[in-house]
Amino acid sequence: MAVREKVFDVIVSCFKRHGAEVIDTPVFELKETLTGKYGEDSKLIYDLKDQGGELLSLRYDLTVPFARYLAMNKLTNIKRYHIAKVYRRDNPAMTRGRYREFYQCDFDIAGQFDPMIPDAECLKIMCEILSSLQIGDFLVKVNDRRILDGMFAICGVPDSKFRTICSSVDKLDKVSWEEVKNEMVGEKGLAPEVADRIGDYVQQHGGVSLVEQLLQDPELSQNKQALEGLGDLKLLFEYLTLFGIADKISFDLSLARGLDYYTGVIYEAVLLQTPVRAGEETLGVGSVAAGGRYDGLVGMFDPKGRKVPCVGLSIGVERIFSIVEQRLEALEEKVRTTETQVLVASAQKKLLEERLKLVSELWDAGIKAELLYRKNPKLLNQLQYCEEAGIPLVAIIGEQELKDGVIKLRSVASREEVDVRREDLVEEIKRRTSRPLCMC
Amino acid sequence: MAVREKVFDVIVSCFKRHGAEVIDTPVFELKETLTGKYGEDSKLIYDLKDQGGELLSLRYDLTVPFARYLAMNKLTNIKRYHIAKVYRRDNPAMTRGRYREFYQCDFDIAGQFDPMIPDAECLKIMCEILSSLQIGDFLVKVNDRRILDGMFAICGVPDSKFRTICSSVDKLDKVSWEEVKNEMVGEKGLAPEVADRIGDYVQQHGGVSLVEQLLQDPELSQNKQALEGLGDLKLLFEYLTLFGIADKISFDLSLARGLDYYTGVIYEAVLLQTPVRAGEETLGVGSVAAGGRYDGLVGMFDPKGRKVPCVGLSIGVERIFSIVEQRLEALEEKVRTTETQVLVASAQKKLLEERLKLVSELWDAGIKAELLYRKNPKLLNQLQYCEEAGIPLVAIIGEQELKDGVIKLRSVASREEVDVRREDLVEEIKRRTSRPLCMC
Repeated sequence: MAVREKVFDVIVSCFKRHGAEVIDTPVFELKETLTGKYGEDSKLIYDLKDQGGELLSLRYDLTVPFARYLAMNKLTNIKRYHIAKVYRRDNPAMTRGRYREFYQCDFDIAGQFDPMIPDAECLKIMCEILSSLQIGDFLVKVNDRRILDGMFAICGVPDSKFRTICSSVDKLDKVSWEEVKNEMVGEKGLAPEVADRIGDYVQQHGGVSLVEQLLQDPELSQNKQALEGLGDLKLLFEYLTLFGIADKISFDLSLARGLDYYTGVIYEAVLLQTPVRAGEETLGVGSVAAGGRYDGLVGMFDPKGRKVPCVGLSIGVERIFSIVEQRLEALEEKVRTTETQVLVASAQKKLLEERLKLVSELWDAGIKAELLYRKNPKLLNQLQYCEEAGIPLVAIIGEQELKDGVIKLRSVASREEVDVRREDLVEEIKRRTSRPLCMC
Repeated sequence: MAVREKVFDVIVSCFKRHGAEVIDTPVFELKETLTGKYGEDSKLIYDLKDQGGELLSLRYDLTVPFARYLAMNKLTNIKRYHIAKVYRRDNPAMTRGRYREFYQCDFDIAGQFDPMIPDAECLKIMCEILSSLQIGDFLVKVNDRRILDGMFAICGVPDSKFRTICSSVDKLDKVSWEEVKNEMVGEKGLAPEVADRIGDYVQQHGGVSLVEQLLQDPELSQNKQALEGLGDLKLLFEYLTLFGIADKISFDLSLARGLDYYTGVIYEAVLLQTPVRAGEETLGVGSVAAGGRYDGLVGMFDPKGRKVPCVGLSIGVERIFSIVEQRLEALEEKVRTTETQVLVASAQKKLLEERLKLVSELWDAGIKAELLYRKNPKLLNQLQYCEEAGIPLVAIIGEQELKDGVIKLRSVASREEVDVRREDLVEEIKRRTSRPLCMC
């Protein structure tokens, strides 16, 4: 949880830096709200038992509830983030950070705006977060559903096979083109020459120059959808250059993304190297953030079908938690799980009342303080507790100190002790423990 | 959510001030874990549909999952907080802040310690949080399950009726003694003279002097359980005096608390006055925090029945959210839902690229900044957006400013504008927007 809090801090402060407000939705949705939104993965939805009342399911992601929320509240314009758990009846894989209950961190911009400005901001946010987290070099693959669809059309894929061929293409980051082609031809019944034409396209990736090259492609440029997608990508690259992140972005024709609801630009961030822990399964170079444009989803929940264009991103925090934990382990850094600044201790017996009085004074002054819940704890045990919990200071009360009106303030690390006048204690503790928080 | 975040901030910073670490548990538990822990209220538990695998239910509170977690991980010693949603198939009552999905904020101390030290800290925490939230005067009622049981025994209640008579007593904060007596005698078959004897006790409340008086009570002081409870309460009051909160505490023999798992001291904080919104149902003087000691619960989950004594508290945040919202409405204070410091705007057309460059510079410098997602927004629309969103500053780019290397910085409130050199802009924005956050 201590690691999680650090990661969430980085993510939330970025979302706030970009002017987002936060919303929350219930953990369950009406079953019918989730039906037909996740393609094959719908079988992974958790249903609640029918105990009377509406049929309910646990949310599968945060995007569909967000769209439902916009339609229900007739909102046409919002920039929001949402950090919450989602549920999938999947086989957990702990080392890869895949669970049945896991967090999603979503940022979305809903509203009718000029092209590619919100889309570019989403990519900027992704880059800011991944840089701040210091989890290594990354690359953001970008593509557009319209380019994919246009490409399938000109290659000769029948309309009815767009989705299934799309999901084959999506596997190119894990398996070779040969295998993908075999699946297309052998399992999905595509003509080999059609597959080969797809292969010529989807094995290409590059920067804005590839966009320009494809805009000149005699066939692709004749397809209206593809042309729109390529035009938008060109504009997107202009904005990304102004944001100083164009070098992190790769236009990748093999990026397809599984979900049904995307309608325009899609993206996925991958780490270029993934740390490996000795003796454990490789994490694999995997996706740590993804998103895209979904202009049709809100309309599905509006009785009149009114559309609200949306674009957003989701940070894959479970995977990031694993990586940050591994980095901390490798550095042999111990993460403190509390923030206690000082332990109120006594050197002699029968000083419980004095300890209670002092710790209460410190709490009232806003100091993070603890005491051992013993009437007469040994000083050694009190010091040991500080070592274990990483508490930096000990305020020691003794008979002599009480007479003199002072407290002995001990630094746990250096073992130095100084007498501090009781009325100066709060200030002295604040002075000694005020250091900037770091993300390490 | 903006109000919620403010309330959570107060609560979390108090929990951290007292040295707690944070844990999380899954939203579902094995069904069998929850069975038999909530008495009559078990019917309110949400079950998941049997889709294969273990039978699961949604958590009903955070205490039972905490005890299960301690037993499962063989922890005998922890001070933790947990803020999460719990689920009850109840009839929602929005005005009273009662929902089917709601937050609980729990703080608990587990471990074998000297008597009443952790218990006193729990009461101190309750008082600190309720004072910080500024939701009005409050009182914490305290009692002990052992005193209640001892009292029932000496009054002549049969053992088998302890629990049901206890739940009748618990209603004394809502209905008169006459009605409670009628229930005991009419519905629950207690002899009228037994009920009267109970009545003599449970209508008493007071401070430590009542504890001392009952310690002299010829009958009650002969009951071993009651004597233990009274002795502990006397010690508790000593510690509460040292913590400076004894005046907030009332020993109240009618406080019973419904849940089965309490074994010692129990407590409940009530607001003395509750704000009322014109034309709406009175909130009613209700409980806003509660807790107690439960020394037997962890043992129920341990295969060998090993006990881990626990004491804790839960803050009723949903009710507090309602109260804080009403107070803000009464003050006609608008709560900002974003933290944006500055809007990057332009006075003329064709400056989108310059706006994108500047906003990106500001984000990279950690400034919370936005721009309108339009190629050529009108200045008036940009200023209006600031008014609506409460953004205090506007950084205006114009042709002249670009030539001069300056940005026009406008205060939305005062409408004053000054030219700031571009390289000084970040510092100037920081200087103007750095003010301490307040809880209002």
